[in-house]
Formats: sequence, structure tokens, C-alpha cells
Amino acid sequence: MANDRAYDDLMAFQRETEALAQISGRLGWDQETMMPRGAAEQRGEEMSAIEGVLHARRTDPRIAEWLDRAKPADAVAQAQLRHIRRSYNRMTKVPAALAQEIARVTSVAQGIWAEARAANDVAAFLPTLADVIRLRREEAAALAQGGDLYDALVDDYEPGATAASIGAIFDRMRPRLVALRAAVLASPHQPAALDGSFGADAQLRLTRDLASAFGYDWSRGRLDIAVHPFSSGSGNDVRITTRVAESDPFNCFYSTIHEVGHAAYEQGIDPDYRLTPLGQGVSMGVHESQSRIYENQLGRSRAFTGWLFGQMQERFGAFGISSPEEFYRTVNRVQPGYIRTEADEVQYNLHIMMRFDLERALIKGDLAVQDLEAAWNDRFLADFGVAVDRPSNGMLQDVHWSVGLFGYFPTYALGNVFAGCLLKALKADVPDLDARLAQGDASPATGWLREKLQRHGGLRLPVETITQACGFAPDEGPLLDYLEAKFGEIYRL
Amino acid sequence: MANDRAYDDLMAFQRETEALAQISGRLGWDQETMMPRGAAEQRGEEMSAIEGVLHARRTDPRIAEWLDRAKPADAVAQAQLRHIRRSYNRMTKVPAALAQEIARVTSVAQGIWAEARAANDVAAFLPTLADVIRLRREEAAALAQGGDLYDALVDDYEPGATAASIGAIFDRMRPRLVALRAAVLASPHQPAALDGSFGADAQLRLTRDLASAFGYDWSRGRLDIAVHPFSSGSGNDVRITTRVAESDPFNCFYSTIHEVGHAAYEQGIDPDYRLTPLGQGVSMGVHESQSRIYENQLGRSRAFTGWLFGQMQERFGAFGISSPEEFYRTVNRVQPGYIRTEADEVQYNLHIMMRFDLERALIKGDLAVQDLEAAWNDRFLADFGVAVDRPSNGMLQDVHWSVGLFGYFPTYALGNVFAGCLLKALKADVPDLDARLAQGDASPATGWLREKLQRHGGLRLPVETITQACGFAPDEGPLLDYLEAKFGEIYRL
Repeated sequence: MANDRAYDDLMAFQRETEALAQISGRLGWDQETMMPRGAAEQRGEEMSAIEGVLHARRTDPRIAEWLDRAKPADAVAQAQLRHIRRSYNRMTKVPAALAQEIARVTSVAQGIWAEARAANDVAAFLPTLADVIRLRREEAAALAQGGDLYDALVDDYEPGATAASIGAIFDRMRPRLVALRAAVLASPHQPAALDGSFGADAQLRLTRDLASAFGYDWSRGRLDIAVHPFSSGSGNDVRITTRVAESDPFNCFYSTIHEVGHAAYEQGIDPDYRLTPLGQGVSMGVHESQSRIYENQLGRSRAFTGWLFGQMQERFGAFGISSPEEFYRTVNRVQPGYIRTEADEVQYNLHIMMRFDLERALIKGDLAVQDLEAAWNDRFLADFGVAVDRPSNGMLQDVHWSVGLFGYFPTYALGNVFAGCLLKALKADVPDLDARLAQGDASPATGWLREKLQRHGGLRLPVETITQACGFAPDEGPLLDYLEAKFGEIYRL
Repeated sequence: MANDRAYDDLMAFQRETEALAQISGRLGWDQETMMPRGAAEQRGEEMSAIEGVLHARRTDPRIAEWLDRAKPADAVAQAQLRHIRRSYNRMTKVPAALAQEIARVTSVAQGIWAEARAANDVAAFLPTLADVIRLRREEAAALAQGGDLYDALVDDYEPGATAASIGAIFDRMRPRLVALRAAVLASPHQPAALDGSFGADAQLRLTRDLASAFGYDWSRGRLDIAVHPFSSGSGNDVRITTRVAESDPFNCFYSTIHEVGHAAYEQGIDPDYRLTPLGQGVSMGVHESQSRIYENQLGRSRAFTGWLFGQMQERFGAFGISSPEEFYRTVNRVQPGYIRTEADEVQYNLHIMMRFDLERALIKGDLAVQDLEAAWNDRFLADFGVAVDRPSNGMLQDVHWSVGLFGYFPTYALGNVFAGCLLKALKADVPDLDARLAQGDASPATGWLREKLQRHGGLRLPVETITQACGFAPDEGPLLDYLEAKFGEIYRL
């Protein structure tokens, strides 16, 4: 009985912590969607207060006692304890003073980065970047306890993944993607660009229908506008955001579908796991697999874009593209560009691999911050065949490093790799997938993903989650085969 | 130095508590404006978790130690300590088990009340009401420690006020208000009703301009729609809500102005008090004085309604009322009615006095819950000259008692009394008030209120706050003089 009580006490304590974490997340949502601008400073204090409460709870010494005494009754309880133990170990290994210093420095660093990017002034950012790297290396050393520093950082976002395992996948992907990119851009069969102006209100109405088509549960969420779209929350309150530009409706539509992928994962988790460690997506990579398969493999498929074409004609009138096939090619148009967040399916992973190699070298100490710009520009020229014209199009383009997110980038590409595997398994299991997508109905895909993957939340490790869903261990093969087939056809390679 | 540190430590701890309380308030705002309906149950757990954190902080034994050792350096520090001591004493006097039981019972009671009201079934509500009263009496006994139970409850909302002091004011008000009401309703000079349909979007645009006219700071707030309008938050994030019905634009406009009154108070408090005990309105009564003077004494004045008439003509076209004078009379129309929240300036306080007498008798034990309906209906007939036709128009109309709010009602009427005093002082100090209101400019009033009252937040006790602002101690005289003059003229008595 003593054992039973320890597990129950721990889970009751944890449940309150999860509820407080949801509150913190909702404050973040509010900040990006609703908060009046004059509230920023006060909000900083509010966030700091709730983060203080969460930190105290997550490092509460009673957790160690409960973990010692708790005996899990089943596999679910085992998984709960695994998450709690993992979190507790990570939180307590890092000295409080270091954690505070990282929080302080990175909160200032983001502003310095933003100014440096606006001014295209690399030198103004480098001292701060060096500080951030130094602190994250210290943190990694505390976590790794003799092991690889970068692995310790990656593990926070993608439990079980290592630089070596990711590097092996990326090394196999890179040559095929470089070749595909070059062939696509050299093809004489370039799709037309989308041209024209598309009313914001009509875009938002259509984007709500897209969310519905992909199974977003409006009774447990809502859609708002944000500068950088995101999804937020777990369980029964999972909110999404999008953005609207009249010249670029695809941005609105595919941002929405992407965030619906994240949200569908959270909304799809077994309700029994709500407000427990299992009640959230298991890793950034698995999360990204959901957003990516919704956005790309499904949302940018010939079948679904055929339906979308009809919807756009109906709602916006003729807009210069005359057939579903032409529209499909336009949606999947590959264009040279510097910016990761604007990259298409072919080029996106090349951006990630570059950041992965550079940040690994920065953390290892093989690359000094003053050499980063040159290393970035050399690599960009090698992979993309273009010289970077200014730092805001180069090493200053992403916020991640300024806020200390090292080890995070590779999860984006892992998500694409996982999505490739999931599509292969989904197509084998659901033969009428395309027929249904062509009617604007993604529910067979959402249903399959929910059953095979989403409902399990954090029950299994990330790679095991994908393996169980697909029936095979994930690798880069299905994604590359899919990309070469899809873009080979579009560009008549 | 030891003393100095105790005060600083206490204030640092308190500041985090205030920040967490702001978060809890913002969750409440989210629940009424943004939350998807499916999130209600999860939100309950989230609210419970943050309330648990707040309760633990507010009863933290370190507060007693700090209070023992802290020596205030000035009047501001003295006031801070007074608030903290008061809160700590109240929180620790009530046994935790009782506080939890009250929270549990009242959260269920609200639903039972709502169902009873919908079904006009008094009997279904009485057992629950009896429980709530029993628990609140227990709480009051713990707080009063031998003193008057009802006083202990009132003191939570209106520090320093007692049943006797309020009762004395109300006893003087009642005969004059009963007489005024009877004379107004018997007058042959009845104003016309507002008729027609007023587009919701145009109402919302105009209501935003009304908020601006009364000095609402949009950079530190926002306006949304809620079923029951409210304002929420302190310092730099003070949000307001309103509602829109196309048949009743005055509801939208005057709800907004009312909430702007509350919000202007919060926004107007000295920024140095932000996230401290002084950084909020000092009592419910003083808060209500601000919402009422904005809504009624200013917003329903002849001067301001003259401007509003022009705005409505401009935005909605002709709407059947042809002169500013006729419009002024329509805005201030007195109609028989059962419902407190729909009552005009003449009848509103009569509703409050009735609730005050009834709830005082309930808490004292002089009135049993099974006799409440008869007592309500008798009193309503006596003061309003009308028999209550059904419980939803009678004792079941208000949510307050179901959630345990005994001692709260009188603060609404105290707010009106205070507003009457403030108007008298304001008019003496600002001779061109009406000339400016006639141009849709309430800034002289807002400026005067900010300087004389709002900026001080919780620095002084409620009555002292009003006395300092007015230059005289508040009583019911100015309000009654104002009401008799205003409605005597409108109804040509």
C-alpha cells in the first residue's frame, strides 16, 4: 500500500504541475495573439512568476522520494515514471544559478539578435551569441556528465536521438537533395507563380474549412492571427494561429494546415492521459511529423490541391490558373531563396542540415563564432549554389540560436523523415486516401494517424512511436523516394 | 538592516504573488471571452491548480515572520503592510478545510441556482442556499472572532464598512427613493422608448469611441464580447468587455462606459504600485463609484447624451428620436421592472437595499431560507408597488448568493453614494465639465478623478479615499439631491 500511495501522490502532484504548465502555455498564446502591447513588461514578470512556480515544483525533492518508492502497476505507469524521472533528472542536474543565467541572457539576446538582423550587423550579435553558446555548453556539460555535449542538448527535444544517429541520416539525404534541387531549378518546365490579390476575410473563411477538413476539433480549440503561426496547448484546449497576406493565400492556408497537424496530435491523445506527462506529443520530431504530413504529403498532394483549386475558384473567382494540374504545380513550385521558413519541400531539409552541422561544430568548439558567418556562407554556396547577399538572409535569419535553441533544428528534418515513412504506411493501409482527399476529406488520414500514432501521446519513445505506427523502423528512404517521384514528375526530370 | 531586509523580502514575495494573481485573473478573462467550450473541465483543474498556489503563498508562514520584523519606512510602506497583514489574517483565520468546502459547495451551487432559475423552482435551490449560508456563517464566525458575522463578510469587499454604517445610509435613502420612484412613474410626462435596429458592427465601432472618450488606454487593454460584461486585470493589462444586441444599443454603450470606469481606475493607479497590494482599486464600493460616475453621472448627463445623439444620427441615420433633449429623456427613461441589472438610476438602489436587509437577516439567523421568497416578494411589493410574478424575476434573479457573495450587494449602492459625492466635488472644481462633455470629451473628468482618487490605488481606506478626493466625508445627500433634481426635471415633477 505504501508503494501505491507514492505513485498516486506523485501523479496528483504532477497533475497540478501539468495544469500550471498549461496555464503558462496559454499565457504565451495570449502574448502572441491578444495581449495589448503596453503589457509586455508586466507580462514578463507574470511569466517569470509562473515559471518560478513550475521550476520549484519540477525540482521538488519529494519527487525523488516518490520516484524511489513508486512501483508502476502497468506499462502506462512505467511510461509516466520514465517521463517524470527524466524531467526531474534534467532539471536537478543543472545548477539553479546556471539555469537563471541562461534565462536572463537568452531573454536579452533575442532583442539583440533582432536588432542585429534588422541592421545586418553580425558583429553586434557575436558577443551575445558567444555568451549563449558558452552557457549552453556549461548546461550540456552538467547534463552529459562526461558524454557528448550536443547529444545532451538534442536529447531535450528528441529523447533517444544523438548527433551520430541524426548525422548518419542527414549524410545519406544530402547528396540526393542537392541533386534534386539542382535538377528541379534547371528544368525548363517551371510552374507558374500565383499572382493576384485574395481578400483576407475570404482567406480566413476558407482556412477554417481547411482546418475542419483535416479534423481540427473546434469545440476544443480556436483559430486566431499571429505574426508567426504556432499551435499551443494540450488536451481539451489546443489553439492554432495563422497569418493572412492578400498577395499570398498559400501562406495562410498551409500555415493553418501545418498547425492543425500539431493540434490534431495534441487533440488526438488518449483523454486518459490528459494533464499527465503522457498527455503531450512525445518529441519535437514526432510533432513535426504530424504538422509536415498534414501540410505537405497530404495538403500539397495532387488529390487535395485539386479540391483546393475548386474552392479557390469558387471563393475568389478566376485567378489566372486554369487547371487543377497547373494549380498543383504552382502550389509545389520550387524557387531559389535564402530563407528556411519560406523553403519548399525540396530545399527545406538542406537548410536544416546546414544548421545542424554548424551548431554541432559550435557546441563542440570546432567552430568559433567569429568564423560562423564565413562557414555559413561557404556551406550555402555549396548546397544551394548561391552566394548569401546579406546576413539577414544568412546566419542572422533564424531566432533559434539567440534564445539558446541548439539541438532543436534537426527535429524539423527528422519530422520530415518520419512524415515520409508515415505516408508510405498510410497509403498501404488506406487505399482510397487520394479519392477522399480529392473530395476535400482528410478524415481517413487523420483517423489512421490518430489510431496509429496520435492517441499514444508520450507512451513510447519517439522512434518507437514512429516504428509502431508504420510497422517498420524509420529512415530517410521513403521521404527521398517521395520527393524524387513527386518533383521529378512536376518538373519532368 | 535586518528590518529593511524583512520588508524587501516580503515585498519581493508579495510581488510574485500579485503577478500570479494577475495570471489567475487573466485565465478568468479567457474563460469568459476566448475559451472553447470543450475546455471547461480542464480549465477547472487549471484554475484549481493556480488557486492552490495562491492560497499556499497567501498563507505562507514566512509572511507572519516578515510582518513581525518589517519596519515601514514611509506611509506607502505602512499601507502595503496593512494590506498584507489584513489578507494574511483573513486567510489564516479560516481553516483550510472550511475554505475548501466553501469552494467546492459554491462551485456546484452556481449550476444548481442556474437550473432552478431556468425552471422557476425555488425549492430546488433552497437546500443548496442553506448549505452556502451555513458555510459562510462558519467562515464569518472564524473571521469575526466574537464580532458581528455580517460585518466580517462586508469587510472583505469594503474594508472598514459595517452593517450599521451602511444601514444608516440606506435607511435615510429609502423613503426619498421610494417617493421619487412613485412620482416618476406616475408622471404624465413619460419619455419615448428607443425603437429600431442598430447594426452590431456600427455599435461596436461607436462603443470603442466611447471608451476612448472616457480615457480608456488601448495600449494597455482591449475590448471583447462577453455574455455578462466585466473588466479584468490591473496595471498595464486591464481588459474590458461589452455585449451587443441590435435592438438595444444603450446596453452596449453603457456597459462599455461602466467597464471603462472600472478599467480607468486600474489603469490610473500610480505605476509605482504595480504588482503590489496598493496596485488595485481599494474596495468594491470605490471601484463601483468609478464605473457608476462614468456610466451615469457623466455618461447619462444631458451634456454627454447630446454628443452621443449626434454620433448615433451620424452612424445609424434617423432613428425616430428627433432632438437631443428627447434623446436625453429616452436614455434616462424609468420603467417598472423586476430585474436589478436592468434597473435605472432611480430604482437601482432600492434593489440593493432590499438584498442588503434580506441577506443581513439570513446571516444573522433572523430569516430562514424557506421564508426568503415570501420576504422578498413582500418587500418588493412595498418598495416597487408590484407583485413578483415568478421566482426568476424575484429571489432567483441574481447569481450572488449561490456563489456565497453575502456582504457584496451593498457595495453597489455605496458606489452610487460615492459617485454622487464625487460628482459634486468634480463640478465645483471643473466648471467647464458640461461644455467639454457636450463635445464628447470626458477627459477633464477622467483627469480630475485620476488625480484625486484613481492614482492612489489602495493607499488609503475606502472612505478616506473618497473623503480625500471630495474634500468632505461621503454621505447619501449629494446622490439623492442629484437624482431628485435630474429626474424631477425630466419627469416635470
